[in-house]
Amino acid sequence: MKAEIIAVGTELLLGQIPNTNAQIISNALQEIGIDVYFHTCVGDNQERLLYILETGFNRSDIIILTGGLGPTKDDLTKETVAAHLKLPLIVDKQSLNNIKSYFATRGKPITENNYKQALIPEGALAIENKKGTAPGILLNKDGKIIVMLPGPPREMEPMLKDVVLPYLSKMSSSTIFSRVMKFYGIGESALEEKLEDLISQQTNPTIAPLAKMGEVTIRLTAKAQNRMAAEKIIKPVEDEITKRVGNFLYGFNDDSVEEIVAGLLAKFNKTIAVAESCTGGLMAHKLTNIPGISEFFERGIVSYSNRSKEEILKVNPDTIKKYGAVSEKTAKEMAQGIRISSGADIGISITGIAGPDGGTPEKPVGLVYIGYSDSNICYAEKHIFNGERTDIKERSVNSAFHLVRKMIQSLGD
Amino acid sequence: MKAEIIAVGTELLLGQIPNTNAQIISNALQEIGIDVYFHTCVGDNQERLLYILETGFNRSDIIILTGGLGPTKDDLTKETVAAHLKLPLIVDKQSLNNIKSYFATRGKPITENNYKQALIPEGALAIENKKGTAPGILLNKDGKIIVMLPGPPREMEPMLKDVVLPYLSKMSSSTIFSRVMKFYGIGESALEEKLEDLISQQTNPTIAPLAKMGEVTIRLTAKAQNRMAAEKIIKPVEDEITKRVGNFLYGFNDDSVEEIVAGLLAKFNKTIAVAESCTGGLMAHKLTNIPGISEFFERGIVSYSNRSKEEILKVNPDTIKKYGAVSEKTAKEMAQGIRISSGADIGISITGIAGPDGGTPEKPVGLVYIGYSDSNICYAEKHIFNGERTDIKERSVNSAFHLVRKMIQSLGD
Repeated sequence: MKAEIIAVGTELLLGQIPNTNAQIISNALQEIGIDVYFHTCVGDNQERLLYILETGFNRSDIIILTGGLGPTKDDLTKETVAAHLKLPLIVDKQSLNNIKSYFATRGKPITENNYKQALIPEGALAIENKKGTAPGILLNKDGKIIVMLPGPPREMEPMLKDVVLPYLSKMSSSTIFSRVMKFYGIGESALEEKLEDLISQQTNPTIAPLAKMGEVTIRLTAKAQNRMAAEKIIKPVEDEITKRVGNFLYGFNDDSVEEIVAGLLAKFNKTIAVAESCTGGLMAHKLTNIPGISEFFERGIVSYSNRSKEEILKVNPDTIKKYGAVSEKTAKEMAQGIRISSGADIGISITGIAGPDGGTPEKPVGLVYIGYSDSNICYAEKHIFNGERTDIKERSVNSAFHLVRKMIQSLGD
Repeated sequence: MKAEIIAVGTELLLGQIPNTNAQIISNALQEIGIDVYFHTCVGDNQERLLYILETGFNRSDIIILTGGLGPTKDDLTKETVAAHLKLPLIVDKQSLNNIKSYFATRGKPITENNYKQALIPEGALAIENKKGTAPGILLNKDGKIIVMLPGPPREMEPMLKDVVLPYLSKMSSSTIFSRVMKFYGIGESALEEKLEDLISQQTNPTIAPLAKMGEVTIRLTAKAQNRMAAEKIIKPVEDEITKRVGNFLYGFNDDSVEEIVAGLLAKFNKTIAVAESCTGGLMAHKLTNIPGISEFFERGIVSYSNRSKEEILKVNPDTIKKYGAVSEKTAKEMAQGIRISSGADIGISITGIAGPDGGTPEKPVGLVYIGYSDSNICYAEKHIFNGERTDIKERSVNSAFHLVRKMIQSLGD
């Protein structure tokens, strides 16, 4: 099965937005064993879209289009596909109801042009859009599968996962299955050196290391007839890697360190409170992205001013005067202060210089102290991070989560 | 001059990396008045690349290829272009010297396959690669311009800027200039209805509305001989749009609402403190992404527990008991509490139900109250947002920033 992806939208050709959808869809198709041979972007222009469609029909079995399904006159994907296939557009009642209720629940009047979104080519299946108004469309005609999905990735992605992938995977005779191992505390080259022989011998599964912000991942990808067979191929390689560098391994696949921390808090029934200075709420934000965290996350303080560090966190003014707000001692007092004032089991603090200004030779931009406090221990670690302000915030929070993870994990030892 | 961009690389079709280059190049070409009509990605496969090249030569004046210039057997972009144009590949001495010195300065031996990178089609111009080994190639043949650039964006971008754009802008007799107007508080369809006549008459400038999370933008794009002339074409249309829907207009181009708020805080010399419940620190995080905000941002409280609302924000326990933590009254008390306890000029609060659990028929997931307090006024507004937990957080914070913006702007009235 050969597939291609066509993104429709002048904003792509103007370079206003990246073609995120092509990457997401390609990745997903690869995992169900469907080869993608081409990506194309074309503007909101019927003639050129028609030309691209004709080319697509000549060379591919599956054509996935993204964008151009909205209510405006610019949006002409389904009109063009329907014209090419000589299919009339008809009202899909369910989609019409969804659009009406979308506006009704927002208490907004439905404008005329929104009705256009409920039209689908005759014989097609409408795919519900849970995040917006334009339904997706799935069409099987003359031996070709045509899928149309909305442009915004947040609308597109659930429709891809819930409807399109299950539909297409029935067509595919082989599976590609991947498993990602996630490491913290070891660099990419050091990791590769320890696995050099495995990497150079790799065929099935393939072993692909990748350095990301503050971590290294290894993707093991196996091709087999079905998922179980693929998992069987991956298992011994994963075991061998774990044997060699398992002490740096912290998770798999989409595990995020904050989710692992949330799981550990639940497992050991511990509550946490965080006091952030330079990271400005990012740690609390990441924690509170996790549903159900309210049981374990007591509070967060963004103590940007010294006054707030002293008032709420009870940091000794003399400590700040003597050692500075960015110091091991202040980090420890902040961690202890947030733990005690909140009544939480664990207190975490982050204080540092995120830049671009505020650095000195002794305390450069990127210097960050992370504090940890529980009823037994009060500890702070020093880091020097590289990058822009937002990178430094990101890396600091990442390290703070790993510190909590290691501390809680040690409770289980 | 019609251009198209062809990215070569199987890793793109597998979804391992995004096609960043297409966006960067499109954006740059747009600014020098060259229209990009197509983006294509094709794998490291000579037959399919040849087919895409032939298509490109038939429909475009300028073809920019990225990727496939490296030392390995997979890299076959220039070989395929040379074969298509029936040009021999010859050694470019300068490039060969550059490759040799690249390895020499790193103390590494130069491997045989690296010499391949010094080959360019006869009659072509080599473009120096200051960040890597593969030179770029610029070729003007049979009235077509062919540009080949390396795949890694950090190598590609300087070559584009330093050599390709200056070369191409001599060919282009016009400039395209865009201006983006950003609106809040009006939907895409409603906005379009008010501008329908303008949109349907559009030619130069073009008028392109786009709905994003919580806002709508309109991009005005003019084509003219130079930037000043383009701005002159845009001005009357911008003025007319402002006349009709200016009360929803909040910014231009890359302005983010948090940056506008930061600018207003500085302009009116006001400090702010925020108390967040359901948004869990996201507002503080966004504010603190802005360099220099520490002068105006006093503190943030993530009052996830009722206890923290009562202890730090001095919310009356009876208020929570009687009206609930998610209520207009609690939002107001939180805003006032954070303002008074922090000593900031403005207090903002957000309390709501981000889901996925915790909703009831009376208080559904997505119900959010945003409170505002200054020395004159204490106010709260009610919203019902759609989407996942993270969407609800995002939309809540966005609305909170717009509330602050409107409140501070009214100080200037």
